[in-house]
Amino acid sequence: MLHDLAARLFPLRRSLTGNGVRATLAVLTERLPSLVQHEVTTGTPVLDWTVPDEWNWRAAWIADEQGRRLVDADVHGLHLMGYSVPVRRRMAWPALKSHLHTIPDQPDRIPYRTAYYADTWGFCLRHRTFLDLDRRGEDAIYEVCIDATRGPGALTYGEVVLPGASDETVLISAHVCHPMLANDNLSGVVVAAAVAEQLAKRGARRYTYRFVWAPGTVGAITWLAENEEVVPTIRHGLILANLGDAGGFTYKQSRPGTFNDAPAEVDRAVGVALRDAGERPDVRPFTPYGYDERQYGSTGFDLPIGCFTRTPYGEYPEYHTSADDLTLISEAQLQDAVARLVDVIDVLEANRHLRARVPHGEPQLGRRGLYRALGGHPNAPTQQMAMLWTLNMAAPDETARFDLIAVAERSGLPFAAIREAADLLEEHGLVERLRSERTRRF
Amino acid sequence: MLHDLAARLFPLRRSLTGNGVRATLAVLTERLPSLVQHEVTTGTPVLDWTVPDEWNWRAAWIADEQGRRLVDADVHGLHLMGYSVPVRRRMAWPALKSHLHTIPDQPDRIPYRTAYYADTWGFCLRHRTFLDLDRRGEDAIYEVCIDATRGPGALTYGEVVLPGASDETVLISAHVCHPMLANDNLSGVVVAAAVAEQLAKRGARRYTYRFVWAPGTVGAITWLAENEEVVPTIRHGLILANLGDAGGFTYKQSRPGTFNDAPAEVDRAVGVALRDAGERPDVRPFTPYGYDERQYGSTGFDLPIGCFTRTPYGEYPEYHTSADDLTLISEAQLQDAVARLVDVIDVLEANRHLRARVPHGEPQLGRRGLYRALGGHPNAPTQQMAMLWTLNMAAPDETARFDLIAVAERSGLPFAAIREAADLLEEHGLVERLRSERTRRF
Amino acid sequence: MLHDLAARLFPLRRSLTGNGVRATLAVLTERLPSLVQHEVTTGTPVLDWTVPDEWNWRAAWIADEQGRRLVDADVHGLHLMGYSVPVRRRMAWPALKSHLHTIPDQPDRIPYRTAYYADTWGFCLRHRTFLDLDRRGEDAIYEVCIDATRGPGALTYGEVVLPGASDETVLISAHVCHPMLANDNLSGVVVAAAVAEQLAKRGARRYTYRFVWAPGTVGAITWLAENEEVVPTIRHGLILANLGDAGGFTYKQSRPGTFNDAPAEVDRAVGVALRDAGERPDVRPFTPYGYDERQYGSTGFDLPIGCFTRTPYGEYPEYHTSADDLTLISEAQLQDAVARLVDVIDVLEANRHLRARVPHGEPQLGRRGLYRALGGHPNAPTQQMAMLWTLNMAAPDETARFDLIAVAERSGLPFAAIREAADLLEEHGLVERLRSERTRRF
Repeated sequence: MLHDLAARLFPLRRSLTGNGVRATLAVLTERLPSLVQHEVTTGTPVLDWTVPDEWNWRAAWIADEQGRRLVDADVHGLHLMGYSVPVRRRMAWPALKSHLHTIPDQPDRIPYRTAYYADTWGFCLRHRTFLDLDRRGEDAIYEVCIDATRGPGALTYGEVVLPGASDETVLISAHVCHPMLANDNLSGVVVAAAVAEQLAKRGARRYTYRFVWAPGTVGAITWLAENEEVVPTIRHGLILANLGDAGGFTYKQSRPGTFNDAPAEVDRAVGVALRDAGERPDVRPFTPYGYDERQYGSTGFDLPIGCFTRTPYGEYPEYHTSADDLTLISEAQLQDAVARLVDVIDVLEANRHLRARVPHGEPQLGRRGLYRALGGHPNAPTQQMAMLWTLNMAAPDETARFDLIAVAERSGLPFAAIREAADLLEEHGLVERLRSERTRRF
Repeated sequence: MLHDLAARLFPLRRSLTGNGVRATLAVLTERLPSLVQHEVTTGTPVLDWTVPDEWNWRAAWIADEQGRRLVDADVHGLHLMGYSVPVRRRMAWPALKSHLHTIPDQPDRIPYRTAYYADTWGFCLRHRTFLDLDRRGEDAIYEVCIDATRGPGALTYGEVVLPGASDETVLISAHVCHPMLANDNLSGVVVAAAVAEQLAKRGARRYTYRFVWAPGTVGAITWLAENEEVVPTIRHGLILANLGDAGGFTYKQSRPGTFNDAPAEVDRAVGVALRDAGERPDVRPFTPYGYDERQYGSTGFDLPIGCFTRTPYGEYPEYHTSADDLTLISEAQLQDAVARLVDVIDVLEANRHLRARVPHGEPQLGRRGLYRALGGHPNAPTQQMAMLWTLNMAAPDETARFDLIAVAERSGLPFAAIREAADLLEEHGLVERLRSERTRRF
Repeated sequence: MLHDLAARLFPLRRSLTGNGVRATLAVLTERLPSLVQHEVTTGTPVLDWTVPDEWNWRAAWIADEQGRRLVDADVHGLHLMGYSVPVRRRMAWPALKSHLHTIPDQPDRIPYRTAYYADTWGFCLRHRTFLDLDRRGEDAIYEVCIDATRGPGALTYGEVVLPGASDETVLISAHVCHPMLANDNLSGVVVAAAVAEQLAKRGARRYTYRFVWAPGTVGAITWLAENEEVVPTIRHGLILANLGDAGGFTYKQSRPGTFNDAPAEVDRAVGVALRDAGERPDVRPFTPYGYDERQYGSTGFDLPIGCFTRTPYGEYPEYHTSADDLTLISEAQLQDAVARLVDVIDVLEANRHLRARVPHGEPQLGRRGLYRALGGHPNAPTQQMAMLWTLNMAAPDETARFDLIAVAERSGLPFAAIREAADLLEEHGLVERLRSERTRRF
């Protein structure tokens, strides 16, 4: 059960770096034995960045003079602002106040805040709690403790590589840096794991698949820097996030798909897979803001990697608050996301450019047992229509033009029907893969 | 009168092959003396197919034990399933039933069915008749007679060639294989004949025109196989069908016009011709299903041939039933289709790319008597606007860019006005045909 | 005050040629000392045309037999049809009538008519006056006087050249041939002057600006003929007209912007400048009718010059009548047009193609003080988004792809924010101009 897995991962103390990420990956490894934890040492140059200090914390609280813990990160991990420097000090309210973060218009929710790359510390709390403290007056004295370490260590990411017939690669990535937020992004973390599990069981894969669980931004940058030889093999990719909430799918197209004014193959694969499942996704163009598609889609990489979510970041009220908890995500929505992603992968695996071996006129399907013998009906059944479309859109020569996704798009027929028709026509020698696709290693 | 012609052709026993087609072409030859009947022998390889056996029938009926004819193809030709093998036999109801075809939800109509390329026989009847027979019980015995021959012979098609200044060819084709169905496709057969008659009377034609009356699918395939040297000269073409019913025009674009995301010249000619006639056709993209555009638009040929109809096949309730009779088609609709097709041909004949001989600034039309001398009016009349548009969209050099259809499309002015403006401007030496078009043989 | 300037220019006797144009330019020279009056002699060949005769008039009236002046061009300059040949003669009503022009359905307005290139004369009058005269009967005798000269002289146009760092040129042009019509086109004349004044005060200009006040059609043709060496340097241009009325902006795209199916840079600059000012202009495609964009946009020149107006010619009821007077135009609308044109120029001046110097992954903005250190907020402020968009859309190599206008368009952010982001990123060495743009002379 994916929800159970998310529940197990929920309390772990994830951040950009540190033991919470390692513990999370360790849990995933139980299901994915081939998962490798990569550790990249603090200070390593990665593209324009350097791997940051590692951060871990043991305790974090605010107590009153009587020692009563008023805010305690053991009670809820979001109370501690991520990457806070250690502190142990008595402070009056005015000084403490400047380190506190709340959401005044959602007074019962703890916000999620981080202090990456800043030399500061802070607590996040319910605005209601903040007001209680404020009522104690300016002179109230508090004891503040953040028992944390921030210093040399490593950035950790997990990776599962599933080799295929070709080293052409599909990259699937989920950010793993958020503590105690369920939809953003335990949903993406567990959906990626479930898809990897399913694919791992397959006997044959056309593509090599790489599943990456890494912290946002600097994690993706580190992966890109550490995988220079892999990057040129990436053909398709998806960033997974926010996949457990009750919303429908939103798909943010890849940068090349957006900027070339022609959707990339992965964008089109998502399109037909969701269409065939009866989904009506909200398809949006690439923007250089969001999740790690920003890095994969930076101008120098321009990789065809889209972002596959349900309700996008910032568009649900629970986003980046303590209300993004395990009640926000459901088993059914998580499983449905897995199923649709497997559909997308099935489309990518089967997609290809065909060449017609009988390009002039329709081949006589009847003679080959491929056609109903009794004529005159106005509506030919789906399978026959799929054959006619596949034959008609096959190239007359070696020039690639329409792939099977294009046939499914234009015909309006399910991709599965087109794939079956293509298989049948290949079997009967009426179409064949373009030579250029046959010489590729799959 | 075209309706009279259709009425004469109606009872003839047309099928893929046989004497009904020959008789039909013989009637057309009365109006088109240059019509040639081509006979292609059974077994001739034609592309991926072979010419089928010829089929003719003399009688076909079902009688009861008293010899009363309950179903008789002499009463309505559709009763006999096309290409039925001969049979003469006494049968009980259960055995006979499996050879009968009806339309249960249109109980008073005889369906049209064929058994091309299948070794079977059948009768088509009103469902009401079927129920009457059924009520006679399982034990009733019937005598069945199909006095038909199916064997070596020929496939027949008719062709009229009207030579033009150029051997660049316009192909106009109508399928001639349907028995006793008026809209599908005696309407196309007689409209093609009427257009051919009109064009034959013209003193000068830019293009060579080929009018083809052939059985559907295998007829088109045979024509393509037998005319290998003609195919490369085809510049434009139209398939004609369903042109007599009360509906408006539907135009199915040619394959290149659809798949190149830029309508072909014939598609654009149909567009402006119908627009200028005040028609608002239902324009649809190419699909590899329908009439013989499937063959001309197979991937290896990819010819710019559209399909020009009123209500498309399968979209009127009388389609492929005995209700597609002479009452479904009207003289006015047939004649109007002829007129619009002649308009399309007029556009194709006049369309060309022009080069501006005075490309810098507007030429001074006034000095040449081409402009009203009195200025200041906000709305210049059509003819002047047509001159300005034609001049402005003429190429500054030998690079073809906009043809006259494009000028008519963009300006919103009638093609006839643009053509007149172009003629006038050519006369005054302000534009000339592109050299590339002048060296073509017309 | 621009309206005061228009009021001063209003009574001057402008036409295609003559002293009224000279007097108009002389008034503009008071504000624009660098304005040069060019005189091109009658008979000079200019493209396909020749410079026409010069026309000046001293008096023009129709009197009755008692010497009472019934129509007098001293009372309203529109009474005299432009370019009328001299006449002094007594005439009966039927003969006179054929020389009179009125607007029957706007009986209180004098129409504007000209007789360019025609050997005739005429008067324009209120239809009400015409009916008064008509009531005097067919036998009434009138004295007609047009004291005018039409003969060798010159065509006059004014030009202000503001040199820039580059000789790449922006052309701004307004037709100056209309007498006593305020919106068409004193509005364009004074707006062009005000924009020129503002630009003249700037210390640095990237582009060279040429402001041209010339008579319509033959004036533009003369300018083009006389400036053969300038034409190839024109990068952008705008025709100004009808800018004082109460309407919103209408922008007619340049010919290349329309015919290439991709707006030209000037078209896009107008688009973002007006968008950012909260305007929703009516954007229309190029047509070969209208103002001098017809000449600049003739097929041989095909210059990227749009037409910037409020209500277009012919679309307001006062157009080309005596009701197009100083009450139709307002200071506020004129000044607002000036402001928007300066916005457009600001966009053109700042627009450029950038190359990313850190193309792989996002550069670490935080380290450079360009990013808020505190993460987790869903909506980054405009300036940060502008940086991310500018970085992402910068070219990874020397291949120009998106300019800053494209970044503003796609991001939806104000051009000013994108320009500031680009400046900041250039300062920090994160982007640089494409080499091809650096070697251009600005």
